[in-house]
Amino acid sequence: MKQPFRFSRDYKQEDTVISVKDIKIGGEFFVLAAGPCAIENQEQYYDTAKLVKEAGANVIRGSVYKPRTSPYSFQGLGTEGLKLVRDLGEDLAIVVETEVMDTRDVQVTAEHVDIIRIGARNMQNFSLLKEVSKVDNPIILKRGMNATVDEWLNAAEYLMQHGNESIILCERGIRTFETTNRNTLDLTLIPYLKSKTHLPIIVDPSHATGRRELITPASKAAIAVGADGLLIEVHNCPEKALCDGKQSLTPDGFQTLCAEIFPYLDQEKRILSGWQDGA
Amino acid sequence: MKQPFRFSRDYKQEDTVISVKDIKIGGEFFVLAAGPCAIENQEQYYDTAKLVKEAGANVIRGSVYKPRTSPYSFQGLGTEGLKLVRDLGEDLAIVVETEVMDTRDVQVTAEHVDIIRIGARNMQNFSLLKEVSKVDNPIILKRGMNATVDEWLNAAEYLMQHGNESIILCERGIRTFETTNRNTLDLTLIPYLKSKTHLPIIVDPSHATGRRELITPASKAAIAVGADGLLIEVHNCPEKALCDGKQSLTPDGFQTLCAEIFPYLDQEKRILSGWQDGA
Amino acid sequence: MKQPFRFSRDYKQEDTVISVKDIKIGGEFFVLAAGPCAIENQEQYYDTAKLVKEAGANVIRGSVYKPRTSPYSFQGLGTEGLKLVRDLGEDLAIVVETEVMDTRDVQVTAEHVDIIRIGARNMQNFSLLKEVSKVDNPIILKRGMNATVDEWLNAAEYLMQHGNESIILCERGIRTFETTNRNTLDLTLIPYLKSKTHLPIIVDPSHATGRRELITPASKAAIAVGADGLLIEVHNCPEKALCDGKQSLTPDGFQTLCAEIFPYLDQEKRILSGWQDGA
Amino acid sequence: MKQPFRFSRDYKQEDTVISVKDIKIGGEFFVLAAGPCAIENQEQYYDTAKLVKEAGANVIRGSVYKPRTSPYSFQGLGTEGLKLVRDLGEDLAIVVETEVMDTRDVQVTAEHVDIIRIGARNMQNFSLLKEVSKVDNPIILKRGMNATVDEWLNAAEYLMQHGNESIILCERGIRTFETTNRNTLDLTLIPYLKSKTHLPIIVDPSHATGRRELITPASKAAIAVGADGLLIEVHNCPEKALCDGKQSLTPDGFQTLCAEIFPYLDQEKRILSGWQDGA
Repeated sequence: MKQPFRFSRDYKQEDTVISVKDIKIGGEFFVLAAGPCAIENQEQYYDTAKLVKEAGANVIRGSVYKPRTSPYSFQGLGTEGLKLVRDLGEDLAIVVETEVMDTRDVQVTAEHVDIIRIGARNMQNFSLLKEVSKVDNPIILKRGMNATVDEWLNAAEYLMQHGNESIILCERGIRTFETTNRNTLDLTLIPYLKSKTHLPIIVDPSHATGRRELITPASKAAIAVGADGLLIEVHNCPEKALCDGKQSLTPDGFQTLCAEIFPYLDQEKRILSGWQDGA
Repeated sequence: MKQPFRFSRDYKQEDTVISVKDIKIGGEFFVLAAGPCAIENQEQYYDTAKLVKEAGANVIRGSVYKPRTSPYSFQGLGTEGLKLVRDLGEDLAIVVETEVMDTRDVQVTAEHVDIIRIGARNMQNFSLLKEVSKVDNPIILKRGMNATVDEWLNAAEYLMQHGNESIILCERGIRTFETTNRNTLDLTLIPYLKSKTHLPIIVDPSHATGRRELITPASKAAIAVGADGLLIEVHNCPEKALCDGKQSLTPDGFQTLCAEIFPYLDQEKRILSGWQDGA
Repeated sequence: MKQPFRFSRDYKQEDTVISVKDIKIGGEFFVLAAGPCAIENQEQYYDTAKLVKEAGANVIRGSVYKPRTSPYSFQGLGTEGLKLVRDLGEDLAIVVETEVMDTRDVQVTAEHVDIIRIGARNMQNFSLLKEVSKVDNPIILKRGMNATVDEWLNAAEYLMQHGNESIILCERGIRTFETTNRNTLDLTLIPYLKSKTHLPIIVDPSHATGRRELITPASKAAIAVGADGLLIEVHNCPEKALCDGKQSLTPDGFQTLCAEIFPYLDQEKRILSGWQDGA
Repeated sequence: MKQPFRFSRDYKQEDTVISVKDIKIGGEFFVLAAGPCAIENQEQYYDTAKLVKEAGANVIRGSVYKPRTSPYSFQGLGTEGLKLVRDLGEDLAIVVETEVMDTRDVQVTAEHVDIIRIGARNMQNFSLLKEVSKVDNPIILKRGMNATVDEWLNAAEYLMQHGNESIILCERGIRTFETTNRNTLDLTLIPYLKSKTHLPIIVDPSHATGRRELITPASKAAIAVGADGLLIEVHNCPEKALCDGKQSLTPDGFQTLCAEIFPYLDQEKRILSGWQDGA
C-alpha cells in the first residue's frame, strides 16, 4: 500500500500544534509575527521588537541574510547578525525567527534562532530544503510566487522527510498579470489547503500587497478565511528602511492593526498564544 | 483643464449610494444578492428566491441569457424568461437582477428588471456597454477574468458617460496559473479600488472559487476587506442544476452563510439594507 | 455515439482550405493580411492598402468599429466606413476584412466585406458568435487574451454550428505576468492546435508584441511553427495614427518584413496565395 | 555618474562571444547542447552523448544533481556523477555542461565540467549565484518560471559581479494560465532582450513545451527570432527515462531535428560552432 505524504490529512487527521518556547501555533492558537524586513543594527531591531511585542506580537521576525534582486542592494548583516537575534530572543523572552538562504548557514542559524524561515525564492531550492530537514526547529515555508499547491506541499514533504513535523506554511501572494499590488494574495486557497494538510498556514500581507495601507484589511481577511497567523513587516522608521520601507508598518500602524484584528480573532475563537495569557 | 473620469474620487469624493426599490447599496449599506445561476423554470426560481429572501438576501439574482463555453450547453430561457423575473420581483416585493448579453435585448431587459448585470466575458464588449449606458437602471459590472484595474474602471466610464452613476463593480476572480480554485479572488484589490473610485464594489465568491465549501470563508473575507455586497449562487437542488451546480449553495447552506456573515457585518458596521430594517 | 465537435480532426481529417475571391487560406496556402488598425479616412486607407498590396499582402485589414479601452478614444468610422471597405476591395481587386462588434451590425458587415473578424475581447461574446454563425463569410476568430484552448475551440464551434466551416483562428498573444511586451505570443501552441483542429491558424504579431521592431522576427517564428498566415498592422504614417501607432509598421517596414519572410515561406513550402501566382 | 550594469549594451556594445574548448557561443556562433535530462548511468550517458554528437550537438547536457518536485523521485547521481561528466568530455572531446544546485558543490563541479548550469528554480537563489560568480567557467542561467526581464538580468549581474562575462541566458518558458503545454515559451522576448544585453541567449524547448512533438517547431522558431543556441533533452530510451521521458527526443528524433534546423541556421547565417568546421 502506498504511504500517504506526511503533510496530508491522510497521514494525520488532527491539526498540528507546534510548541516553541511559551507559545503554540496551529489548532486554536494564532501566531502574530512582526518585526523588520532586514535587521539593520541593534538599535533598529531592539526598538522595533519592543514596540511590536508590547502591541501584541508573539514572534519577532527579522532577516540577517537578505535575498535582493540586485547584487548592489544591501545584502543583510550576515552570520554575525545571528547573535543579535539570539540575544534579543533572550532579552525580551520572545520567540525569534529568521530566514536562511545557504546550506552552509543552516546549522549555525538553527543554533541561534527559534524558527527558521525559507523564503519564496527558495521554495524549490531542494538542496536547502534537504539541509533544513535535518534540524528540529519549527520552519516557516513561504510559498513560491509561482508555486502550485502540489509543488508547495511537496516542498513541505522535503522538510518533513526525516520526521520534523513542525512546518508552518506561509502564503505571501502569487505573481499574476495584475500588478497594481505587488502580488495577488491567494486567500481562498487557505480553506482549501486546510482540507488537505494538517500543517498550520499563516499569511504575509506585507509582501503580498506591497502597500502599507492594505495590510490591515488583508490581515482581517486572512483571519476570516482561517489563517493560523500573520507575518508582518514593521520598521521603527520606514522612510529610512534599507529594504521594503513602502510596505512596512510603523509601530503605531502595527498597534492599529492589532486593535482592528483582535475582535476578528475573538470572532473566530482564536487564541493569540502567549500574549493574551499573560494579559 | 482635464476633466476627471466620472468613476474617480476626483470627480466625486463621497461614496455613491444607490437606491433601488426599498434598498440602498454603497456607503454604509450592504447588499446580499442571491439566487440561481440560471433561471430554469418558475418553480426552481420562485422556490430558491423565497428561501434566500427569508434567510437574508435583499436582491434575487438569476440569468435568463446564459453565456456558456459550449454551444451545446443550456443557453437560458431567453427573453421570455424576463417576465418571470419581473413577476417574481413584484410577487416577493424584492429587487431582482439579471444579465444582459446582446445590445438588442438591453431595452426590454431594462423594462423588466431592477438591476442589469454585465458578465465578466462582456466587460470589454464595448457595443453592449454603450447600449447599456443609455438606460437608468443600476448596473452590476463584473470584472473580466484578465482585466486590469484601468480596463475595469474604463469599462465603468463607458457606462457612466451619459450620466448614470448607479454602477456597481463586482470582483469575481481573475485567471492565473493557479487552477486549484476556478479563479483567484483578488480581495486585496478592493481596499485599493475604494481609494480610486466612489462606486460600490461587491464580490462574487461563487464564480471565483467554483467550490461550494469555500463560499462562506470567502464571503467573510470580502466583508473584512470592505466589500459593499455579495453575489451568491444558490439552487434549490444543486445536483440537478443545469449550470454551475458544484459551486451553488443549497438554501440550507445559504442560511448557514448568513449566520456566519452577520456578525462580520456588525463588526464592520454595515447595514444589510431592507432586511435588517424590517427585522 | 457522441458527435465529434466540428472543429476537430475527428470530424474532418484533412486541413480546411478556404477560398475567397482569388485566394486560398489553409493547407499549403499562406495568407498575408495587412493594413491599418483603424480606417481613419479614404486617403489613409487607400494609400496604406496600395502599398501593402504591392509589397505582398493578399488581404487588406482595417477596422471601422473599434474596441477602445477608454470611451473618449477614437471609436472608428462606424457603419458608414463599410462602404469604403467594399469600394477598396473592388477598386484594388483584393480581399478585404474588418471587425464586427455588435449583433446589429453583422448582416450589413457581411454584405460589404469578404472576411469578418471577431476581436479578442469578443471571443466569448456568445450573442455575437451566434449572430455571425448565420453568415457565410469566412471568419477570423481571435483568441481571447485569457482563453484556454478549450474555450477558443468552443468559440469556433459556436461559429460552425450552422455549417460555416470557413473559420480562421488567430493567435494574438495572451496576458501573463510578463509585461515587457504587450502580450506573450503563444507560438508553441500552434503545432499543438494543428493536431486538434483542421482549421487554419494565423498569427497577429502586432498586438502580441506591441513593438514595431519585434514584428518581423515574430512573423518568421510564426511561419517556422506552421502558422497559415499573418495579420499585420501597417499605417502610412504611424506617428499620426489614431490607434496603435507604436506597433504599426510603416509601408517600408512592411516591405522589409516581406523580404525577410519570403525565404521562410519557401523553406516551409508555403504558397502566398494570389500574389506569387500573379508574379 | 552611475555605472551601467555589466549585462547591458551600455556597458558593452558588441555581442559577447564565449570560447570554450574548440567552440564559440554568441555573435555568429550557434550552440546546440543536447543530452539526457538526468545522467542515470555510464551506458545511458555515453550512448546518448555519442549519438547526439554525431547528429550535430557541440555540447553534451546532463545533470547529476536533480531538482525534483517530490523528495521521493530520483535525485540524481550526485557528486560521484561528476567524474562521468569529465570523462565523457575528454573521451568524446566535446564540451560538457551540468547543473549545480548547492553552494557546497560549486568548486568541485567547476573543476569537472566546462559549463555550469543554474536551473530555473534557482535563478534567484542568491547564495548560489554569489558562489558561482567566483568561478571562471561559462555559466548557463535559466530564466525562472515567473521571472521578469529585470529580475533575470539582475541575476546575471550577480554572476558577473567579479568579472566573469561568460554568461549564457536560457529562456525555458514561463508559467501562465495556459497549461496545455508545460510552460509558455516566450520567444518574442528574445529580440527584445538582445537590444538590452550583449550576452548570448539560448532556448530550451524541451522544458518549455513538455511535449516531444513540439520541440522541432519550437527550435526552428527560436532560430528565427535570433536565439544563439538550443538546449535539448535526448534520451537513448525515453520510455525508460527516470526523468522527463515524455519531453525527451529519441536519438532518431534528434537527428530529424538537426535535419530540420540546419537550413534555418543557414538562413540566419549562423555557424554551428565546432561541428560544421570539422564536417
